[in-house]
Amino acid sequence: MGIKIIIEVSLIFNDKQTTLSFFKEEVAEFVRKRGWKKFHTPKNLIQALQIEAAELSEIFLFKDYTIEQILSKDELLEDISDEIADIFIYLISLLNICKIDLTEAFYKKMEKNSTKYSIKEFNNGIYYKK
Amino acid sequence: MGIKIIIEVSLIFNDKQTTLSFFKEEVAEFVRKRGWKKFHTPKNLIQALQIEAAELSEIFLFKDYTIEQILSKDELLEDISDEIADIFIYLISLLNICKIDLTEAFYKKMEKNSTKYSIKEFNNGIYYKK
Amino acid sequence: MGIKIIIEVSLIFNDKQTTLSFFKEEVAEFVRKRGWKKFHTPKNLIQALQIEAAELSEIFLFKDYTIEQILSKDELLEDISDEIADIFIYLISLLNICKIDLTEAFYKKMEKNSTKYSIKEFNNGIYYKK
Amino acid sequence: MGIKIIIEVSLIFNDKQTTLSFFKEEVAEFVRKRGWKKFHTPKNLIQALQIEAAELSEIFLFKDYTIEQILSKDELLEDISDEIADIFIYLISLLNICKIDLTEAFYKKMEKNSTKYSIKEFNNGIYYKK
Repeated sequence: MGIKIIIEVSLIFNDKQTTLSFFKEEVAEFVRKRGWKKFHTPKNLIQALQIEAAELSEIFLFKDYTIEQILSKDELLEDISDEIADIFIYLISLLNICKIDLTEAFYKKMEKNSTKYSIKEFNNGIYYKK
Repeated sequence: MGIKIIIEVSLIFNDKQTTLSFFKEEVAEFVRKRGWKKFHTPKNLIQALQIEAAELSEIFLFKDYTIEQILSKDELLEDISDEIADIFIYLISLLNICKIDLTEAFYKKMEKNSTKYSIKEFNNGIYYKK
Repeated sequence: MGIKIIIEVSLIFNDKQTTLSFFKEEVAEFVRKRGWKKFHTPKNLIQALQIEAAELSEIFLFKDYTIEQILSKDELLEDISDEIADIFIYLISLLNICKIDLTEAFYKKMEKNSTKYSIKEFNNGIYYKK
Repeated sequence: MGIKIIIEVSLIFNDKQTTLSFFKEEVAEFVRKRGWKKFHTPKNLIQALQIEAAELSEIFLFKDYTIEQILSKDELLEDISDEIADIFIYLISLLNICKIDLTEAFYKKMEKNSTKYSIKEFNNGIYYKK
């Protein structure tokens, strides 16, 4: 006779809770376990990222899905999500080897972009300065 | 007579603390303020991402910097960081319009990759299955 | 007293008269004179070609010019022509170093494409096999 | 009684004899027969060209074949030739719809390149101006 206690821990990971460092560690571990570090030069990773970006592009070749179409087709949405994840994984590997803090890089670039594309000049949907 | 309380809040943002949702909101706000939403179709954003990836690639054209060289040259590191940030910003915009949770997409893809590139078969730095 | 004979030779080069070998020789000479052969590995040339293709793509970013618009704007047409020429020049360099006859490669690929996309199945503007 | 005359015409096509116009006509015919003209906007063709360029790049991902290795492996050389042909075919389609004479575009660009990269400054294998 006894008491059985069941504790269910449900870990839900999503963009609201997950920091960039988490991805950095996950990807580094994946690479380390497979002995791929020697292939991960900056140049190679950028090349890989470009290839994945082209695969994402291919989904839309001679087609132009609207957001509604994408959101209503599970298989299509998964294909897109998979390719985006592949790009992100190579981007994370690149951050890892160059020891770049993406949050810091993001802030610096957004500040530059704010100056380059001032709200005063770009508040009407026009994209490029004359 | 009274008590003066000074609370200094020092906000330091870095990859350890910053979640993906934060970037999603920052980028969405930037786009909204400039009225750029109409340009942000999936196809256009993927095209923009590819262009930024090529600009990153161009830094390494006919050159092959080592990690040591990159880390020791501030200007080079900033150029690389800027281009990475640009790619990331378009990636975030793409997530925003497709309502994709990147953490979830990442998990699913990493699981597929774990099966595709098993540690048993890829523990010696070999990259591709025969 | 005498007779003066003037012979005017007007050399007009265009796509009707110019063979691929001509471009191969022109590009090889250009590269040789500048001592660039050492940079021209297949991998580097493909990287360069991708960068030029992205520059061509950038002309159309957030814009979708019709043929009529392109043909009526001299500056736009020249920008497009310049980028196409850049892609072609790297393609020619790639053929040169790999000693590939493009005419032969073209024939072989067109034959494969004819089988892959049979007229019977693709005569109605449908692009991809189910 | 009679005389039998046999004339054997052996058509050998190669880069020495084949003009760009020939490719333009072949590709236009291929596209026309399949009713693909409606898909052939400049933007779509550039996108397709980029995808083919990435497929060519993928052959060299995490590998760096020398010319000797390429020339000694028939299958590898055919893969490279096929991808180059695919890029060329889309390039030709782009010329067709934009009514661009590539020979003329090539001349103009080579002249610009001659000025930009003068032999005086670039005779020692150095690639970029300071």
